[in-house]
Amino acid sequence: MKYFEEIQVGDTMMVGRHTFTADEIKAFARRFDPQLFHLDDAAAERSHFGALCASGWHTAVVWMRLMVDYRRAMAEAAHARGEPVAGIGPALGFRELKWLKPVYVGDTIEYQSEVTELRPSNSRPRSGLMSIRSTGVNQNGEPVISFVSTTFVERRPERP
Amino acid sequence: MKYFEEIQVGDTMMVGRHTFTADEIKAFARRFDPQLFHLDDAAAERSHFGALCASGWHTAVVWMRLMVDYRRAMAEAAHARGEPVAGIGPALGFRELKWLKPVYVGDTIEYQSEVTELRPSNSRPRSGLMSIRSTGVNQNGEPVISFVSTTFVERRPERP
Repeated sequence: MKYFEEIQVGDTMMVGRHTFTADEIKAFARRFDPQLFHLDDAAAERSHFGALCASGWHTAVVWMRLMVDYRRAMAEAAHARGEPVAGIGPALGFRELKWLKPVYVGDTIEYQSEVTELRPSNSRPRSGLMSIRSTGVNQNGEPVISFVSTTFVERRPERP
Repeated sequence: MKYFEEIQVGDTMMVGRHTFTADEIKAFARRFDPQLFHLDDAAAERSHFGALCASGWHTAVVWMRLMVDYRRAMAEAAHARGEPVAGIGPALGFRELKWLKPVYVGDTIEYQSEVTELRPSNSRPRSGLMSIRSTGVNQNGEPVISFVSTTFVERRPERP
């Protein structure tokens, strides 16, 4: 991750993509969102969704997983170039989370995040606060999820 | 669930409580949020959290699970009394999700939801839109998570 001073509003991150299988949709739902349209094909066909689809929370946490992997890959690449890596986190929360379309079995969701706001932190002067808008888009180009999250990002250390 | 017309702003739901174990914190993190302070006790002690703690997403999806169980229990109780049960869902999304305190191993979080807004739906005239603020509070009375969600709730059918 870059230092806070090196980030600009409008910077984008191609976070990654994921294809949702029936097995993992059902496994997530059994544990965290056991509504029939996430668990049972026949019941899902009769529901307002029309077919088995992923829990909205599942669509959100897959973004988290891909973002952790993305940051790790960026950090490893920076280390390999001999560059420093800024600390990131913790996250304060998110806002405006919208589930725009269902995610059906076999859908491939591509997640992208864009920096929307940068501001100083009063509580942690060695960090800044970065807000990003993250979106997931399916293979037909339709947005399925969108939200804004805010995270601490380390400032560049002052030279001694 | 009650019909939209029978719900009032200020109605509260005692959604349920959950104790977070080290095993389930690590299992969730391995799958969806593999940051070291959610996975490894020694690394968590050295982190800004000071000890192993749950992914914020984990704290959120446990609410979802408890809410599904709560609605199911309410529906079964209504059926047992011979009363009709209003349909609920889908959810449109969430806003103002805040992670206020870490959730550490052994913490018991009690989740409560309160109706904050009721308004007609333009897109689905047979439903209304209900917003609720949900909070999770630990065993010391400290809020750890808070968010607002909006869901469709079925209107009472007109008599023929």
